[in-house]
Amino acid sequence: MNTAYQQLRSIFARISRFNHLSAIAHWDMQTMMSHEGSQARSEALAEIDVLCHQLLCDPKVGVLLESASKETLEGADEANLTEMRNTYRRAVVLPDALIEARSLATGKCGFAWRTQRPANDWVGFASNLHEVVKLTREEAKIRAEATGVSRYDALLDLYEPGMRSEELDRIFGDLKTWLPDLLRRVVAKQAPNPPLPLQGPFDPGKQRELALKVMRILGFNFSAGRLDSSAHPFSGGVPQDVRITTRYDETSFMPALFATIHETGHGRYEQNLPQAWRDQPAGLARSMGIHESQSLMFEMQVARSTPFLQMLHPLVVTAFGQSPALTEANFIALAQRARPGLIRVDADEISYPLHVILRYEIEKALIEGQIEVDDIPALWNQKMQDYLGIGTEGNYQNGCMQDIHWTQGAFGYFPTYTLGAMYAAQLFQAALRALPSLNGEISEENLQGLSGWLEENIWSKGSLHRTDKLMTDATGEALNTKHFRAHLERRYL
Amino acid sequence: MNTAYQQLRSIFARISRFNHLSAIAHWDMQTMMSHEGSQARSEALAEIDVLCHQLLCDPKVGVLLESASKETLEGADEANLTEMRNTYRRAVVLPDALIEARSLATGKCGFAWRTQRPANDWVGFASNLHEVVKLTREEAKIRAEATGVSRYDALLDLYEPGMRSEELDRIFGDLKTWLPDLLRRVVAKQAPNPPLPLQGPFDPGKQRELALKVMRILGFNFSAGRLDSSAHPFSGGVPQDVRITTRYDETSFMPALFATIHETGHGRYEQNLPQAWRDQPAGLARSMGIHESQSLMFEMQVARSTPFLQMLHPLVVTAFGQSPALTEANFIALAQRARPGLIRVDADEISYPLHVILRYEIEKALIEGQIEVDDIPALWNQKMQDYLGIGTEGNYQNGCMQDIHWTQGAFGYFPTYTLGAMYAAQLFQAALRALPSLNGEISEENLQGLSGWLEENIWSKGSLHRTDKLMTDATGEALNTKHFRAHLERRYL
Ligand SMILES: [Zn+2]
Ligand SMILES: [Zn+2]
Repeated sequence: MNTAYQQLRSIFARISRFNHLSAIAHWDMQTMMSHEGSQARSEALAEIDVLCHQLLCDPKVGVLLESASKETLEGADEANLTEMRNTYRRAVVLPDALIEARSLATGKCGFAWRTQRPANDWVGFASNLHEVVKLTREEAKIRAEATGVSRYDALLDLYEPGMRSEELDRIFGDLKTWLPDLLRRVVAKQAPNPPLPLQGPFDPGKQRELALKVMRILGFNFSAGRLDSSAHPFSGGVPQDVRITTRYDETSFMPALFATIHETGHGRYEQNLPQAWRDQPAGLARSMGIHESQSLMFEMQVARSTPFLQMLHPLVVTAFGQSPALTEANFIALAQRARPGLIRVDADEISYPLHVILRYEIEKALIEGQIEVDDIPALWNQKMQDYLGIGTEGNYQNGCMQDIHWTQGAFGYFPTYTLGAMYAAQLFQAALRALPSLNGEISEENLQGLSGWLEENIWSKGSLHRTDKLMTDATGEALNTKHFRAHLERRYL
Repeated sequence: MNTAYQQLRSIFARISRFNHLSAIAHWDMQTMMSHEGSQARSEALAEIDVLCHQLLCDPKVGVLLESASKETLEGADEANLTEMRNTYRRAVVLPDALIEARSLATGKCGFAWRTQRPANDWVGFASNLHEVVKLTREEAKIRAEATGVSRYDALLDLYEPGMRSEELDRIFGDLKTWLPDLLRRVVAKQAPNPPLPLQGPFDPGKQRELALKVMRILGFNFSAGRLDSSAHPFSGGVPQDVRITTRYDETSFMPALFATIHETGHGRYEQNLPQAWRDQPAGLARSMGIHESQSLMFEMQVARSTPFLQMLHPLVVTAFGQSPALTEANFIALAQRARPGLIRVDADEISYPLHVILRYEIEKALIEGQIEVDDIPALWNQKMQDYLGIGTEGNYQNGCMQDIHWTQGAFGYFPTYTLGAMYAAQLFQAALRALPSLNGEISEENLQGLSGWLEENIWSKGSLHRTDKLMTDATGEALNTKHFRAHLERRYL
């Protein structure tokens, strides 16, 4: 007879096989699917979601978890059991009726948003968002009661397990004391010498070739993954077959190039998650913040550094020919330019956290019931003025309607972007200490040292440790904002 | 309370949603999947296969089928219930142990075949095939006992429901009286003027452009499907999103072009299956023979006809430039060339049925226990000599080891290729009677008349009628070999 833990392993392995098909079908939907396939695909994906939910929430799983907790397990198995338990509790706590209502409301809100945003239709959007917020508050209440943390923290924990808003308040509070000022100083410093703008068009075929070349330099394993294009860049698929995407803009090669580098970071993490745990919860990426730290490690710490840009420059010239905007100095200036703007996804690494803090403050107050949906536009405008010096009054589409996250009920997600940026800075500093010649290696297309360090300290750990232990083991301390600040000051001042 | 039939509809709709994911993942495996994704993909597909088998074989389904047979149903629902019943009976009759043993044996045989075939290793291959045949005989015995037909017929019925070997013996017996002689006469007629061979290389990008252009002419719906490339051309995906593939050979554009046309025929059938029945058994393609009739309708009846080739010729010249081998006359001669050869998949439409009859005779005797695996090579050589005038002694790789079908236990499949060719000839004659200007339309890139006729008579019928009724409704008679003979004589003599 198998132990309870062994039986749980089989159940979770089975769910992971269904998740494999779901992941591939999701990737296909964004990259390959024909227009008329959309309805049937959504139904098929919903069906397998329901199946996985049922398999996970089977009362038998609860009983087995109970029994397994009395069995003697090795360290890694113990960690895996913990992840199983967390996964189970998160899934089982919500009543089916709420899951269904949320799925309907987010589906409706997200679908309408696609046309409401370009139409700047806040009133129409708000009425849908109201329902999503109402249901997400119910969800947060239930999760909070089950876990004993605040409502917002109960949602935050879904994306960044172990993180609490108390800590975020401290971290983001610190950033707010120096980041707006740093941004102003960098903008002032860069103002006298604005870089020449790129002169397109840039052939998408050549952009793709360059992207593939850079992925190879960054160590992406093309026997276990591929690059395609989609409306929004993402990283999907399964660890054995990672599917990253980018999007080609003929007027500038920079967005596709840096999006590819970003997604390559996500992809390398997935490709190098611990092989022995691939079909188990312990084999999954640790958190959304750690995931983002790997993409930002490649995009921000490595690829926008001067040594990397210097190495990259000749490849860019080979791809697109010489031009005044493509001198080495101008190319570097374009890649390291800081400019406050309205749109989060277009933001440079200095202003990006301010977009995140703004959203964090609004969504936390919203979930905790301190504000209502109708309060969002005024707050948005005010905080944009305060943090970035740009107002958004009446401009909903490039203000509070710009992101898809809230339409999907993903409150608590935004902080992980900036946690990722800070984890990345701290990890890169630790890697530099371990590998003193790292910057030289990077300038010679050699990412092996860094890859080895990341594999040893992050990738191969999957979810075997909690985030704080992962960070402490890797860097000698828990998350510390000073590394991010030092990084920005070093690069931009 | 839902009726039993309504409950069955829900169960079959759910299975069809899982089949959607399986179909996309299968397509992905042949077109997109990374090398290292293979193991995890096989496991995921096996898992969903097991799930669908369990859902279908649930004793509840048997009880519901029993109850539903006492409910009053409309004609189409009655047909759907019949298809449900057949699907259930076919699935439920095999013991799980046999399914598992068969899956292991065919997996091993097919995997080894990939290297044994190029190595001409008959002895190694035979030892694996022996096990596959043994298990397929067991399967045939069980199916025969359950359905009251002969063992071979019980397998044949899986691919061509309603067809019996008695009828095949009659049909193939007829073909054997005139086809070898017709082939000899056509070869003799073409011998004095052999066409000039094509001079490559032919750029795959240009081949793809031409293939897409021809798919558009043939009416393929690109909002509900796409063209990609794979090692072996196939048609997959789902009716809402049909995935066809081709394979580009730089030395000749003809294989990719005609493979694309062939798969477009399969694809158009799938795209135009009855919308109202898409998630039900009645909405599936009628049989493998009818499926092949649609691909051969497009490839053989339409695309290799002189009017179509005349219309196609300028497109080919536009794609690849003028050359002595690309005069209109030479191009047509290349597309209509008849030459007996060793390889079934390379055969022209006159010799193709002889390859099929040979395989039919051998596999029927094998399943009925009249011969053994070790008897195959000698029989193959003998029949190749008799039907096509070419021996295969000692040449296993291009003789009895050339096809994948038997390695997969797919005994009873081969006849559907030639049934398809004969259905196609008969259907095209009926379409010509209904559309007297059809050949003129084809020469003007106008396939609308034919498409409308096929949609009305075949595509929109799905599995709502039995094959014999489908053919009689469409053509006024059951399958009659005279149309195929008339077609070949008209085109080639
Ligand atoms: Zn990211
Ligand atoms: Zn075919």
